[in-house]
Amino acid sequence: MAETRIITPTPSAVIPSLLIKSIFERSLNYDLDTEILYRDQVRINYRDFHKRVAQLAHALTNMGVKPGDVIGVMEVDSHRYLELYFAVPMIGAVLHTINFRLSPEQIVYTMNHAEDKVVFCHQMFSPIIQGVHDHLDTVQKYVILTDKDQEVQVTFEIEGEYEALLAKEKDKYNFPDFDENSMATLFYTTGTTGLPKGVCFSHRQLVLHTLAVTASFCAIDTPIAINSKDVYMPITPMFHVHAWGVPYVATLIGMKQIYPGAYQPDMLMKLIKEEKVTFSHCVPTILGMLLNHPDAGKVDLSGFKMVIGGAAFPKGLARAAVQAGMNVLTGYGMSETCPILTVAYLSSKQRAELPSEAQLEERIKTGRAVLFVEVAIMDEEGQFLPWDGKSIGELVVRAPWLTQKYFKEDKRSEELWEYGYLHTGDMAHIEPNGTVLIVDRKKDVIKSGGEWISSLELESLITTHPAIQEAAIIGIPDPKWDERPLALIVLRPGQTLSPSEIQTHLKQYTETGELSKWAIPEQYKFVTEIPKTSVGKINKKEIRRLFSENKL
Amino acid sequence: MAETRIITPTPSAVIPSLLIKSIFERSLNYDLDTEILYRDQVRINYRDFHKRVAQLAHALTNMGVKPGDVIGVMEVDSHRYLELYFAVPMIGAVLHTINFRLSPEQIVYTMNHAEDKVVFCHQMFSPIIQGVHDHLDTVQKYVILTDKDQEVQVTFEIEGEYEALLAKEKDKYNFPDFDENSMATLFYTTGTTGLPKGVCFSHRQLVLHTLAVTASFCAIDTPIAINSKDVYMPITPMFHVHAWGVPYVATLIGMKQIYPGAYQPDMLMKLIKEEKVTFSHCVPTILGMLLNHPDAGKVDLSGFKMVIGGAAFPKGLARAAVQAGMNVLTGYGMSETCPILTVAYLSSKQRAELPSEAQLEERIKTGRAVLFVEVAIMDEEGQFLPWDGKSIGELVVRAPWLTQKYFKEDKRSEELWEYGYLHTGDMAHIEPNGTVLIVDRKKDVIKSGGEWISSLELESLITTHPAIQEAAIIGIPDPKWDERPLALIVLRPGQTLSPSEIQTHLKQYTETGELSKWAIPEQYKFVTEIPKTSVGKINKKEIRRLFSENKL
Repeated sequence: MAETRIITPTPSAVIPSLLIKSIFERSLNYDLDTEILYRDQVRINYRDFHKRVAQLAHALTNMGVKPGDVIGVMEVDSHRYLELYFAVPMIGAVLHTINFRLSPEQIVYTMNHAEDKVVFCHQMFSPIIQGVHDHLDTVQKYVILTDKDQEVQVTFEIEGEYEALLAKEKDKYNFPDFDENSMATLFYTTGTTGLPKGVCFSHRQLVLHTLAVTASFCAIDTPIAINSKDVYMPITPMFHVHAWGVPYVATLIGMKQIYPGAYQPDMLMKLIKEEKVTFSHCVPTILGMLLNHPDAGKVDLSGFKMVIGGAAFPKGLARAAVQAGMNVLTGYGMSETCPILTVAYLSSKQRAELPSEAQLEERIKTGRAVLFVEVAIMDEEGQFLPWDGKSIGELVVRAPWLTQKYFKEDKRSEELWEYGYLHTGDMAHIEPNGTVLIVDRKKDVIKSGGEWISSLELESLITTHPAIQEAAIIGIPDPKWDERPLALIVLRPGQTLSPSEIQTHLKQYTETGELSKWAIPEQYKFVTEIPKTSVGKINKKEIRRLFSENKL
Repeated sequence: MAETRIITPTPSAVIPSLLIKSIFERSLNYDLDTEILYRDQVRINYRDFHKRVAQLAHALTNMGVKPGDVIGVMEVDSHRYLELYFAVPMIGAVLHTINFRLSPEQIVYTMNHAEDKVVFCHQMFSPIIQGVHDHLDTVQKYVILTDKDQEVQVTFEIEGEYEALLAKEKDKYNFPDFDENSMATLFYTTGTTGLPKGVCFSHRQLVLHTLAVTASFCAIDTPIAINSKDVYMPITPMFHVHAWGVPYVATLIGMKQIYPGAYQPDMLMKLIKEEKVTFSHCVPTILGMLLNHPDAGKVDLSGFKMVIGGAAFPKGLARAAVQAGMNVLTGYGMSETCPILTVAYLSSKQRAELPSEAQLEERIKTGRAVLFVEVAIMDEEGQFLPWDGKSIGELVVRAPWLTQKYFKEDKRSEELWEYGYLHTGDMAHIEPNGTVLIVDRKKDVIKSGGEWISSLELESLITTHPAIQEAAIIGIPDPKWDERPLALIVLRPGQTLSPSEIQTHLKQYTETGELSKWAIPEQYKFVTEIPKTSVGKINKKEIRRLFSENKL
């Protein structure tokens, strides 16, 4: 380390830490009449929001919550969740966002592993708690969250109902200062093997992520550029990597925010239409659901800005979104990375000059590193590979907001950070201009006759066929080529298609050079549904299991 | 301090420091054909810029510059200065931006105090160095910067000419990592008393300032909102508080940048016109100069965005700018604060709803704290005063980027940070919505008959008279009222005016309640010029001296 000149402050100088409090206080600076909504049920403004966060902080401390304690939350996307995003870390406690889509056994495992002391649980999830209640070793108190006009109906002992607890408290709270490396959030990621792993983030990490994402989304000339006048609605669950950190961005710059509760297509369309939502983010599956919704034609989606991530963005879907007038771009990250690492780039100059097909290509690329993110590709021996748009290696990253370890998992933490870079488990190449292109998950890439076939690329090209709604590719054993691709196909309603028609469709891409001839699958299975994970991604582990058990 | 849960990274994890390097690397991410200009002489793009910064870093290390060494720079606003903004701190050295408008004695004092080891000096300033050369105790080497087709003509020994030194070097450099609290920049502020004081800023401070200013300028709905497509030209000297830190913002988001050299009105107008400049910042005097320029009518200034700071923004000037179609807002800060603390706020809603006069009022207010800045007003005993829009106290601040001390000045450092807040030396009130309004400099406010008269407010109202170009107010001793205001008036060319006409003009504001009756001055001096400081502010210390020596 270079021996630079370090500044030693004068004794009276106070150097503020980077705390989530700064984001919260900043949002008091502008138009306090701006609203925060929960479905069509609750409508508060920023003035109310600030009071409610203070009341929640008092309620927490009155329940005996101390700095360092872990607070579990099982809740749909709501203004209440946003309040917990701020109040819990701002008193120095840790917010554990529980994935309610896990199995009850996994939920018990994560809550015990995290050592949840107090749990905030929406009434709709209380049957889960009811069932596992006796196995939760550390939980001392439960708070129930209810929707409009709902009565609390639980059979286990609770501290109270959320609104009733808040109503008792003062609406000012003097939030303390503390070390910026204090843990703020904790949640679990379910890999394809083993037990769920806890990832945790500090105040400093969340503040820097928020700032860098704000700069990337607001300052850079792209089709998804936003500002404080935009209307935001997340359509990725708030338990999942802080809903990509965007609720913190939206609050920082004082946007109008809409929280849609459990995702029901009708409610989503209604909110988009009536509250004039202009900015969101979701996985491709949700985007497809919106575009295929019966009301899609009746809601003006033109100008609607969306960041699509969590899975590869199929070209056919991107084309449909652009045809509907939407502004869509890929974003990339993972639970371990807070999450945002890259965003696709398409400048207004490119939009003016490039043919529409080439623009579509840019929109679905993994994208360019956001501020502070260093990307590289590495071979198995930890050697860096060149940025030539061809060499394929594992994407590895550095950034100030990557999880610094798996919670209480020393061995897996060291594996994650081998060679001093966080390993994403994604295979990618990088273009000379820094654009990352993920080829496949490391464990999903198909090795056939010594060449690599990207299952993601195949899925993307197959779904450009107008009769195909969805596709999933896995590698299956082959005596001659080691592995060959198998395609699972979901057809659009009322459509029919034969394997040879799909092969003919794919052949056109071998002529343009987008696909290698040997990548065209021989085997196809037509199914009505493709297995998904708890966060809506294609579950290839499950598909492989079904295949090996001859259940496909 | 609350006992939170601190995250301890796994041994292999690498957590990057906040370094200026991150800003530099990010600017490689987008359109590398974007240009950086110096007057009408030099036109490079970001690709060139990155190579040149690497070459400069090699040149510095080859000259023997080590981390912690101080590099002095005497240069006008140029692409070369921007290169020094990055290369010097990025090798771990300290950039000392020398104020070439100081007296030769003061320049010698600051260079010796800073312990400059290598000095980069534009040929136009070489006569200054020539004259004081023998008194510079620590300088070992000089590099001369020249303009197009200029021959190097200096009589002292030099290491070389800037372009020739760069040309010899490789255009890639592996910039090191180091502690984010390393000193990056150092410069001197000339207070009204005593010797110049050094203020210094770390990498962490400059990175956080850059991010917060980017978020404030790009994400918030105001008339000066910018993005990466804007064209930036500073019209505040780069030696002065990093040109308000905006060159770092412009580079971060990859804007086209124009550096205008020494400020010549004709050149500024030419660059604004031909390079389609859309964003700048300057002191009110420069804005007045642009608006009064003979070509002002020929250049389309509509949509031109400007942040005005460094001195109070007179209402008459703001009105003239708005009438010319410009988007102007006040920004506030000082040398000790990196500098930006507040920016005026005017949302598109307010622009639609408020009468134009009320909008003008908002534009000239000191403004609202930017992200991470905490503002407060304090009485003499260190007690906080309420935000009621009336109570007046000294404006005190906290933020992650305030100078942590005066360089090698322990006593003055502790005075600056009394009670744990940085003292701005400005008297202000704060409105309930957080809008700061500076009433006056603490030492300029006039105490008359037990009431306070703001010299800034008087100046602003006097200059709304169409015949008046500029005004300065100082307090002068009065046997009955302790102090009374004295007005210095500069009339517009060809205008005449009597003191009683000015009094009549001011009387209208007493009727609207904007001014107290007792604030109207009895004494007026008509002058052709008002004394200014080296950075273009009204020099009240000098006016008071001239008055006390009967030279007014």
